Amino acid sequence: VTGTVSSEIRVRYAETDKMGVAHHASYLAWFEVGRVELLRALGMSYRDLEDSGVFFPVLEVGCRFRRPAYFDDRLQISAGAERPGRARLRFRYRVTRVTDGTLVAEGWTTHASTDAHGRPGRLPAKVLRRLEESAGIGRGEGEAT
Amino acid sequence: VTGTVSSEIRVRYAETDKMGVAHHASYLAWFEVGRVELLRALGMSYRDLEDSGVFFPVLEVGCRFRRPAYFDDRLQISAGAERPGRARLRFRYRVTRVTDGTLVAEGWTTHASTDAHGRPGRLPAKVLRRLEESAGIGRGEGEAT
Amino acid sequence: VTGTVSSEIRVRYAETDKMGVAHHASYLAWFEVGRVELLRALGMSYRDLEDSGVFFPVLEVGCRFRRPAYFDDRLQISAGAERPGRARLRFRYRVTRVTDGTLVAEGWTTHASTDAHGRPGRLPAKVLRRLEESAGIGRGEGEAT
Amino acid sequence: VTGTVSSEIRVRYAETDKMGVAHHASYLAWFEVGRVELLRALGMSYRDLEDSGVFFPVLEVGCRFRRPAYFDDRLQISAGAERPGRARLRFRYRVTRVTDGTLVAEGWTTHASTDAHGRPGRLPAKVLRRLEESAGIGRGEGEAT
Repeated sequence: VTGTVSSEIRVRYAETDKMGVAHHASYLAWFEVGRVELLRALGMSYRDLEDSGVFFPVLEVGCRFRRPAYFDDRLQISAGAERPGRARLRFRYRVTRVTDGTLVAEGWTTHASTDAHGRPGRLPAKVLRRLEESAGIGRGEGEAT
Repeated sequence: VTGTVSSEIRVRYAETDKMGVAHHASYLAWFEVGRVELLRALGMSYRDLEDSGVFFPVLEVGCRFRRPAYFDDRLQISAGAERPGRARLRFRYRVTRVTDGTLVAEGWTTHASTDAHGRPGRLPAKVLRRLEESAGIGRGEGEAT
Repeated sequence: VTGTVSSEIRVRYAETDKMGVAHHASYLAWFEVGRVELLRALGMSYRDLEDSGVFFPVLEVGCRFRRPAYFDDRLQISAGAERPGRARLRFRYRVTRVTDGTLVAEGWTTHASTDAHGRPGRLPAKVLRRLEESAGIGRGEGEAT
Repeated sequence: VTGTVSSEIRVRYAETDKMGVAHHASYLAWFEVGRVELLRALGMSYRDLEDSGVFFPVLEVGCRFRRPAYFDDRLQISAGAERPGRARLRFRYRVTRVTDGTLVAEGWTTHASTDAHGRPGRLPAKVLRRLEESAGIGRGEGEAT
C-alpha cells in the first residue's frame, strides 16, 4: 500500500459538546483510528507490534479545525506516513465529511519508537521499510525507493 | 475514616454533549474519582494497590440520572463502601450539585479483586479490614465494629 | 425491522485504560452507537429527531461486564427496543467479540422523551409505533402485533 | 490577574491508556480546564460568556508531550493568554507534575470568537481589555500597557 489510507467513522453523540459540534479532543482519537488502519493496510497490526514490545508513544500533535463536524456525520480519516527516522515516526491526517467532501480538519503526529518501558528503541527493520515505501510514494516522488 | 467520603469536581467542557448537559458516560469517570478518593481516605492508594498487584476491575455498574449537570457546575461526589465479600467489592455513589444541594445522580459499582493478569484473588487482609470498618459505620449500624 | 439491530465497532486505543482493557465507560458510548443504529434501521435518524425537537435523555443505565475487551477487538453491538411507555423508552444491548463470539457485556438504558428544554413530552406517534413493532417481535412474542 | 494562572488536576483512571500513561487526548481537556480557570481568574466565567452569546471555538491546537503522566499524578496546568486580535484568541499551557516539578507537556490553542451559530464576531470590549492586560504583563513586557 502506498500513499494515504482512508477509514470512515461516524461522529458519536458522546463525542459532541455543548457547542453542538464534535469536541476538538475527539479528533485525536480519530487520528489514532486512521493511524492504526494505515499500519494495518501496510501489513502491520499495531496491537501485534505492542505485543512484540514495540510502542509508538505520541511526542507531538498539531491540528487545524477547518469546519465543525456534527453528530452522526460520516467522516473520512485519511492517514499517511512521512519518511521515518531511525526512531521517529510522523503521520499526517485529513478529516473530510463524506457527504459533501468538506475538509473538516487536518493534522499530524510525531511518535517515538520505544520498548514497553518507554525506553527509546530502533524501529524494527520491517516497519521501517514499509513506512519508507508508503511515504516515498505517498509524497508523490517518482524516484525508485 | 468511616461512612462516605466526598470529592469535588467541576464539569468540564469536554464532558458535555450537544444536549447541553454532562454526558452520562462522564459520571462513570466521576464515580471512579470518588472511589479512588474514598480508598485514599481509608489509607489506601489505588495506584499503590495496582503497583502491588491488586486490581479492582468493574463487574457491574448502575446509575440513575436525576437532574442534568451543566458545564462548570461544581459537583460533590460522595462514595461509600459496602461490606466486602472475599473477592467482591461494592461501592455506592451520590452526585450532588454544590451550589444548591440538588441530587444529580446516584449509582453503584461492583468489582472483582484480581491480580495483574485478571485472575481472581483474595482481597488483601488490610484492604478487607478497612473496607469492613468503613462499611460498618457507613451503613449506620450502631454496634462496635 | 424487528428485534435487535447489530453494529460493529473496533476498540480504539483511546478507549483502553492502564489495566490494558477497554475502560468501562467506553461501553456507554458503544451502547449509544447501537441505539442510534437501531433507530436508523427503524427508519428514524436520531439527529433528525433532535432537529425536530425530540430528545431522549438517559434516565438510567445498567451494565454487566462479562469479559474484558481489548484494543483492536472487533465488537458487535446488538441493540433492541423494549415496548415503550408514553414518555419512556427502554433499550437493551449485548456486546459480543466478533472473532470468537464471546459475550463481553450486556446492559440497558431507559430514556425520557423531552423537548429541547428538557420538558417531558409524548413520544411522537410514528416513533411510538415503530418501537412497538420492533419490540413486539424483538421480545419473541408469538402473537400478531 | 496578570500572567499565567494555575489549576491543579489529578490524572483519572479513565484518562489512562494501555501504555499505562495518560492518553494524549486527555491533555486537551486539561488545557480546557486551565483556560476556563484563567478566564475565571480574569473575572470572566466562560459559562456566562456562552450564555451571553460569546463562544470561543478552537481553531488550532499544538502540543508537545515531554514526559509521561501517570494515573493519580497531581498535575499543575498553567494557562496564559497571548495578546488577542479582534476576533482571535491564543492561549499557552504548561503541564507540570506537582510532586517533582517535571515538565510533562506544553501546548497552545487558538480560538475564534463567534456567536451561538458559529458566525465570527468581535470580542466583547471587556474581554479584549482583560486579555490584553493579562497578556501584556504575562509576556514580561516592561512598558505600560
